[in-house]
Amino acid sequence: MKEFNSKNYAEDMKKKIPAYELMFELIFQAILPLTDKEKVKNVLLIGGQANEINGISEVFPDASMTVIEPNEKMLTEAKRQTLSHEKVEFIGSKFEDYVTDKKYDICICLLVLQFVEDEEFFLSKIYGCLEQAGVLFLSIFSSEMLEYWKNFAIARGADKGQVSKTCSQQAQVMKVLSLSTVEKQLLDLGFREMEKILQVLSVALWRCKK
Amino acid sequence: MKEFNSKNYAEDMKKKIPAYELMFELIFQAILPLTDKEKVKNVLLIGGQANEINGISEVFPDASMTVIEPNEKMLTEAKRQTLSHEKVEFIGSKFEDYVTDKKYDICICLLVLQFVEDEEFFLSKIYGCLEQAGVLFLSIFSSEMLEYWKNFAIARGADKGQVSKTCSQQAQVMKVLSLSTVEKQLLDLGFREMEKILQVLSVALWRCKK
Repeated sequence: MKEFNSKNYAEDMKKKIPAYELMFELIFQAILPLTDKEKVKNVLLIGGQANEINGISEVFPDASMTVIEPNEKMLTEAKRQTLSHEKVEFIGSKFEDYVTDKKYDICICLLVLQFVEDEEFFLSKIYGCLEQAGVLFLSIFSSEMLEYWKNFAIARGADKGQVSKTCSQQAQVMKVLSLSTVEKQLLDLGFREMEKILQVLSVALWRCKK
Repeated sequence: MKEFNSKNYAEDMKKKIPAYELMFELIFQAILPLTDKEKVKNVLLIGGQANEINGISEVFPDASMTVIEPNEKMLTEAKRQTLSHEKVEFIGSKFEDYVTDKKYDICICLLVLQFVEDEEFFLSKIYGCLEQAGVLFLSIFSSEMLEYWKNFAIARGADKGQVSKTCSQQAQVMKVLSLSTVEKQLLDLGFREMEKILQVLSVALWRCKK
């Protein structure tokens, strides 16, 4: 994993991920406010950044939150930018190694799956951690339309070498995921009411229910 | 049709259409630059605004363009904001009434179809106007995820009454289109290599080929 530089991270994501900010806007402004707030007690953020943590706190001020992030620097930075720590537990670990009996009402896992070794195990573990009727927001960087994506990211000023490598040798940079395979895995695990909230070139965001 | 106010139009679209600007960025920065410029002689813009006209001129400086727009004020405003008029023909007409023998290499028709009376006739007319292997960029406002869309647009500051009406009585405001029906219509007409470039809540953008 590359050395984490908090200053550059958000800027880099905005260049490389079409609709990076729009994804948060959709989740925190459009969709989660429709949830019955009383029923949301525990939220799980896998690889969550401060914008997600603060977004959750705003929509569900009374809910407890667990944030799991294996990269120490990213976790430290997320803590630093978190506005209210009162109900947030930060865990420096891979989600795969996280042991808990807690059940969550909502899980948010954005742009992590393509870096996971065993995505079936990972998704089944999320399923296991959710309450019945719990909701998952999952986004991925897939293998769709990479040529368009390359042009898009370079036009936005992303690093040309990095972007070209992701495009031509994606399997060396991340797991190669197709939208249909991930959708099938989610359905096979038992997720239902699948909604594709967003898809822009290679990036997709689903909302689904246990 | 509501009175057109050019000042408010773009701002209103940005509030109401998730990824409004992203749509142009994808077409003009990511996708069209990959086209063989030599082969693009004629471009058709149905309901095109100045940002599309100027975008096309930048990517294909040698191509001729036909812009068709029935609303006189919108057409006047598009003309006013067009940077170079040399190769642009403006036609004040509904596309349905446009008579021509010209064939186009590219047609762009964004967020128009939901206001069209007979969308099958409209799409088949586009098909007929395209050269063999000509490319269509089509975006629509569909009937998908309107509840989420309502929340999204209101949070962005769109007019609450208008947005609520579109959500609860969409058929009074526009044609009710589903993504799958439009995709099927395109395929039935003979369009191929369909790519869904973008889908954000109710809005979808496809690229397909004759």
